[in-house]
Amino acid sequence: MIKPHGSDALDPRFVYDTERHHALMKEAESLPSLLLNSAAAANAVMLGAGYFNPLKGYMNKADALSVAAKLHTTAGLFWPVPVLNLTTDAAAVRGATRIALRDPNVEGNPVLAIQTVEAIEEFSEAEISQMAEKIFRTLDPKHPGVATFTSLGRVAISGPIEVLNFSYFQQDFPDTFRTAVEIRNEMAERGWNTVVAFQTRNPMHRAHEELCKMARDAVKADGVLIHMLLGKLKAGDIPAHVRDAAIRKMVELYFPANTVMITGYGFDMLYAGPREAVLHAVFRQNCGCTHLIVGRDHAGVGSYYGAFDAQTVFDEEVPAGALGIQIFRADNTAYSKKLNRVVMMRDAPDHSDEDFVQLSGTKVREMLAAGKDLPVEFARPEVARILMGYYQSEAK
Amino acid sequence: MIKPHGSDALDPRFVYDTERHHALMKEAESLPSLLLNSAAAANAVMLGAGYFNPLKGYMNKADALSVAAKLHTTAGLFWPVPVLNLTTDAAAVRGATRIALRDPNVEGNPVLAIQTVEAIEEFSEAEISQMAEKIFRTLDPKHPGVATFTSLGRVAISGPIEVLNFSYFQQDFPDTFRTAVEIRNEMAERGWNTVVAFQTRNPMHRAHEELCKMARDAVKADGVLIHMLLGKLKAGDIPAHVRDAAIRKMVELYFPANTVMITGYGFDMLYAGPREAVLHAVFRQNCGCTHLIVGRDHAGVGSYYGAFDAQTVFDEEVPAGALGIQIFRADNTAYSKKLNRVVMMRDAPDHSDEDFVQLSGTKVREMLAAGKDLPVEFARPEVARILMGYYQSEAK
Repeated sequence: MIKPHGSDALDPRFVYDTERHHALMKEAESLPSLLLNSAAAANAVMLGAGYFNPLKGYMNKADALSVAAKLHTTAGLFWPVPVLNLTTDAAAVRGATRIALRDPNVEGNPVLAIQTVEAIEEFSEAEISQMAEKIFRTLDPKHPGVATFTSLGRVAISGPIEVLNFSYFQQDFPDTFRTAVEIRNEMAERGWNTVVAFQTRNPMHRAHEELCKMARDAVKADGVLIHMLLGKLKAGDIPAHVRDAAIRKMVELYFPANTVMITGYGFDMLYAGPREAVLHAVFRQNCGCTHLIVGRDHAGVGSYYGAFDAQTVFDEEVPAGALGIQIFRADNTAYSKKLNRVVMMRDAPDHSDEDFVQLSGTKVREMLAAGKDLPVEFARPEVARILMGYYQSEAK
Repeated sequence: MIKPHGSDALDPRFVYDTERHHALMKEAESLPSLLLNSAAAANAVMLGAGYFNPLKGYMNKADALSVAAKLHTTAGLFWPVPVLNLTTDAAAVRGATRIALRDPNVEGNPVLAIQTVEAIEEFSEAEISQMAEKIFRTLDPKHPGVATFTSLGRVAISGPIEVLNFSYFQQDFPDTFRTAVEIRNEMAERGWNTVVAFQTRNPMHRAHEELCKMARDAVKADGVLIHMLLGKLKAGDIPAHVRDAAIRKMVELYFPANTVMITGYGFDMLYAGPREAVLHAVFRQNCGCTHLIVGRDHAGVGSYYGAFDAQTVFDEEVPAGALGIQIFRADNTAYSKKLNRVVMMRDAPDHSDEDFVQLSGTKVREMLAAGKDLPVEFARPEVARILMGYYQSEAK
């Protein structure tokens, strides 16, 4: 199997030793507390789950500036995005060497992790802007990633953490959330060596199914990791259990046995486009994947990034040998009426929009709510039926 | 795949719909609360995880008496052990139709489930004894199962539940705890149809490894489900992460790829011997297993049960067709110096104790703590090394 990023074996920051876990919970009671922002909490979950291997905790100022500017820590580790614990006010924890990090996303704000404080440092406005511009390639305050990043505070608390739970993810998504440790273990159990990761947060229609198969066949993969971004439900989202059922049905009926794993991870979208695509690659390598499908405008938002910037960044900003994982360069896929099969759109330059079977999200929802079948070229009927059940119950 | 017990598809009582989950958490705030005993909490976790399919909640008095006496509910469902919510005092919830069930095993006693109360009924002393005698085949108060069961209270609160979390199991065993839903899903992904379940709560030495292989080969299984009983650490227990690492190493090195799943479930041991073996079979069928390895004195304690009572109970008390799963009848296994292989002891009636490579648990611990290798006939060296690391760090 491919090695994790930056080390021979995964070193997740979750405390698996029950006795130590118990001792830390006890210690936390008497420690000064810091209520994390959502971004720092997401980082803690990723550190706990092994996805951010080999990082041990939050970066200090020098490392964050170095990573933002040139994708390497001061010690020379390749890393695409600063992993920070930023706060607007560190008064409550100043002087402390150990602090309890509290979870903003769970009622009662339980302790998520304990941090050993190595430094408390302040960024200047100019430094925050400088990092944001490097990470997001824009300083437009309307960019959601820029807006979030620049609002998190100027004070960085750095140092290693020990993680005590996985926030709300295990409770809200008990059958889907997986740590990098679990995924790697399961791939080892299955005997997979070459594995393609596919990122989604939606049900998968034929275009996505065929894209996974194209990538699988192109790299001769043992399997495909469907890796869902899990998070709080937003308006218009399909509930997780409906999405999962639809994806499971597709896999059951349309993929050979033992070629797909259906899993999820918990993290906040950064909307950092190219840099985020690189981060996605790093943490898929940590779960044991050898390839990540990167499509059009991967992790992008609005029109901030060129359609293929999230692919070319791997040529332009990832030095040879910095990553073990490779990307599978994809474009949108759709069923071609001319060729009678699903194709990547870039491979059909002679096609116009009408040559493809395409439906807008709105149209899909309308048809399903009305109990109308989707074209089989667009969606598998068994998958559509599961979604139809949901939209019809919603429409009542 | 084999169907779940009593229904075509699993119907776990965990609330997967995030919106409904949220609404129930809110509702719970204004409901009368009942602090569960540990046995009732364990039942809720098993109901939530789909292991107790097709039960919807806690049994009423008539069903419990019927199950204890003749292994069937009043409606005719085959079930081996009463699943009860017993309490010593129902005053706080009397008159309520919906109640919040609180978890005795997690700090702060969070809500574990919400119950719709169908009845609150009292058992007489005679009825409790009558059930205990049927379940445990003894009324000896020194029997740990009898002692627990008869101390839980006389008042049974029956009715369906909706489960909101999996108690401490997901947090304490994030990489091992699995619901029946997850295990079934993963078996479907792997394309397994014939699956042997092996119950353990310890690291596995060669005797266990070879037993699993014997069972696998005998029934031509696609795979083996190693299914660990998870629970709070007791004195002398090997920590979960050490046990898991030892088992993973054994599987990695000594089983073919894609033939073993390493998982765990959370439940309190009943020490009900034969009846518990039947319950073990029911819930392994629910995860998708076609066979359960039942060895000598399975789920027994002391000398209350005959060595093979947990096997003969399947002939004597399980009607034909009542279960889909079958048992693989095992005896203890050990390396025979005469035959130079691991054998089931019952198959070597001409052997004396000295003909086998056997070590007591105490001896094993002593040797490992002293850094001495175990005989390769007894333990795989790579597995022994992991355990040695633990015992040596303990001995410091």
